Amino acid sequence: MTYDEFFQRALDGLKSDGSYRHFAELERQAGRFPRAFHHALGREVMVWCSNDYLGMGQHPSVLEAMHKSLDHSGAGAGGTRNISGTNHEHVALERELADLHGKEAALLFNSGYLSNWATLGTIAARMKDCVVLSDEANHASMIEGIRHSRAEKQIFRHNDVADLEARLKALPRDTPKIVAFESVYSMDGDIAPIEAICDLADRYNAMTYLDEVHAVGLYGHQGGGVAEQRGLADRLTVIEGTLGKGFGVVGGYISGSVALCDFVRSFASGFIFSTALPPMVAAGALASIRHLRQSQEERRRHQARVAYLRASLDRAGIPHIRNESHIVPVMVGEAKLCRMLSDLLLSRYGHYIQPINYPTVARGTERLRITPGPLHEEADIDDLVSALSELWTEQGLSKAA
Amino acid sequence: MTYDEFFQRALDGLKSDGSYRHFAELERQAGRFPRAFHHALGREVMVWCSNDYLGMGQHPSVLEAMHKSLDHSGAGAGGTRNISGTNHEHVALERELADLHGKEAALLFNSGYLSNWATLGTIAARMKDCVVLSDEANHASMIEGIRHSRAEKQIFRHNDVADLEARLKALPRDTPKIVAFESVYSMDGDIAPIEAICDLADRYNAMTYLDEVHAVGLYGHQGGGVAEQRGLADRLTVIEGTLGKGFGVVGGYISGSVALCDFVRSFASGFIFSTALPPMVAAGALASIRHLRQSQEERRRHQARVAYLRASLDRAGIPHIRNESHIVPVMVGEAKLCRMLSDLLLSRYGHYIQPINYPTVARGTERLRITPGPLHEEADIDDLVSALSELWTEQGLSKAA
Ligand SMILES: Cc1ncc(COP(=O)(O)O)c(C=O)c1O
Ligand SMILES: Cc1ncc(COP(=O)(O)O)c(C=O)c1O
Repeated sequence: MTYDEFFQRALDGLKSDGSYRHFAELERQAGRFPRAFHHALGREVMVWCSNDYLGMGQHPSVLEAMHKSLDHSGAGAGGTRNISGTNHEHVALERELADLHGKEAALLFNSGYLSNWATLGTIAARMKDCVVLSDEANHASMIEGIRHSRAEKQIFRHNDVADLEARLKALPRDTPKIVAFESVYSMDGDIAPIEAICDLADRYNAMTYLDEVHAVGLYGHQGGGVAEQRGLADRLTVIEGTLGKGFGVVGGYISGSVALCDFVRSFASGFIFSTALPPMVAAGALASIRHLRQSQEERRRHQARVAYLRASLDRAGIPHIRNESHIVPVMVGEAKLCRMLSDLLLSRYGHYIQPINYPTVARGTERLRITPGPLHEEADIDDLVSALSELWTEQGLSKAA
Repeated sequence: MTYDEFFQRALDGLKSDGSYRHFAELERQAGRFPRAFHHALGREVMVWCSNDYLGMGQHPSVLEAMHKSLDHSGAGAGGTRNISGTNHEHVALERELADLHGKEAALLFNSGYLSNWATLGTIAARMKDCVVLSDEANHASMIEGIRHSRAEKQIFRHNDVADLEARLKALPRDTPKIVAFESVYSMDGDIAPIEAICDLADRYNAMTYLDEVHAVGLYGHQGGGVAEQRGLADRLTVIEGTLGKGFGVVGGYISGSVALCDFVRSFASGFIFSTALPPMVAAGALASIRHLRQSQEERRRHQARVAYLRASLDRAGIPHIRNESHIVPVMVGEAKLCRMLSDLLLSRYGHYIQPINYPTVARGTERLRITPGPLHEEADIDDLVSALSELWTEQGLSKAA
């Protein structure tokens, strides 16, 4: 077997079980989001699965800041952070992020993926005998970071405080421990019991590492995430976030103590050995954060649209996971069916919702994950729900009571 | 000891051995590169250590493409590649990159670091019994990718074809093997014997994985790297590169067969689970590549400046590593001295060269790594060499014959 035959055979496996991914080639159009031009279809579609949750990717103050920075500083950073790549905008953005989360410091990465991977990978590897207690539903980037560290890992049952406590209790008090979890879980949309986890961490002398990737910008009076909303930001050792979803640009970060951020800055391979983000990306993210710290309008409209979609789905009997967040997963449970529904929604009705299949979710829990935003109108939601309803009837899928 | 005390102690260790990193806060100014405003100093300085090797970060056609894309598509991609994040510009850029390297396909990542880490990490992990033969001078991103795969790794002596052959010969023919190496090594600037390595790979049935991060844009008639320059591109299984150095923007990629790229696209966690690059970043990189495929002027001037700097250093007796590339490492050999020289160059003469200390290079090989570009004038080089010469005399450092 040649190497290419090996690769092809693995791909054939994905194709035969329906989990092969087809990327939709879109053309985003600033000012028309959540619509986008769909190249294969040759027409504009309504996007229901973007993680540009608040439409900040087309916000005039974000675009203006980026145009200005592009004119002023050019395209790229020109180096790693250490070797000529630190620009004024990186420093200003790190200051803003620290302030947003009420922390002493923050550290930028090229993506949220890298921030999780590099931070957990570095801290857990370098603290002798460190044990990482990881929620079983944690994101791939945390899992890979922990794996990379080769530290001992204990997986606790999802959002299960009793299981976590039993594990913490069984560890010696002076063993270094990190409890790693998310606030809003991206696929089910449920939210962690952050306060109870912080209580346990205090009691058993553990650090807490909270991924707020699906919450920053969206929750809290200043968009500081669920921890801010619940008044808990100061109880977390690390709050991690992304600049690519609620804030609409790209990049990731951690916030925490000066010593912790400086430690990661100094030892994390994934931070040190890579070209810094372009200054204009930092400038755009900075403008986005500043806007969302003082404006409630996007968050208010976002929540209103989420509530409207849920109520509409309920009226139509379309089964979806109930949760406290903005993520509305319509459950399908089978990869090929999920793709077929997605294809029909697109081709017949012009609604684009990417099917979510394995490995993003477990097999048997395939779904259409809907993320309505402040820029969807109620009429758009009515359209979508009526399309779903027709498909549910046509395909003989069971409706909720 | 608290967690913060642990972090602080590790940082104190770096401070006491001189390897603690101080980032220079710069402000790049499009149109004035290689000059930049240095915030701590409060004045403009001449930058000699940027990896925006050709100044493409301020090239008018790159900036114009980015402004246009920003107006057209907004700031971010709005999703992972699979979930609404694939934009027309990503597809066009991947096509261009494949074409640049004469390969069937290419795959974009958020950085060169991620492309190495995710590709090697995924292929080596998923091919049963795979052995990775890795040059001992390989970049951190490859090392971490190989480590992550948990595949068997054999480190061969730097650029040592005999050592590589002995290792290949000792492995069963049908054991999957990857030979991972770089074209231009970033810190010493030496270049791998690519053809001889490809010959061995053919003979012993191994894949070849070549990191051309410090070569793309700079070498070859179209900027396809050293492999293009030497007419060897078709002999490599994978050519990996960055969009953040010679091309002046940010991002990374691999190019190879359709099956290989699709395999990595389908299985690499670091590719799948992360927000895509902004369309305008892809648009900027595309403009940069297209320019450098047809223009020889930047490469010609670049090589001329490198030759002029080397000759000037030779005349002044400043010791530097001889190599065939554009990287001019002036050897110092001690961390604190290296930092002091860098500080004096900056404060007294306005020349900024970041000291390169451990862990970027081995202890005892600390250096000032100079990367002259096409936009440095000969007079700038004269200035720099005279400053170095004064410092060498003043500090009583040994000069070359
Ligand atoms: C929970 C979670 N953490 C981290 C990430 C990675 O963030 P980024 O997209 O900025 O790489 C994602 C998704 O992309 C995520 O869902
Ligand atoms: C040899 C080599 N490979 C890969 C990388 C990573 O590329 P990027 O800066 O795009 O992350 C670097 C440096 O940054 C490098 O020197």
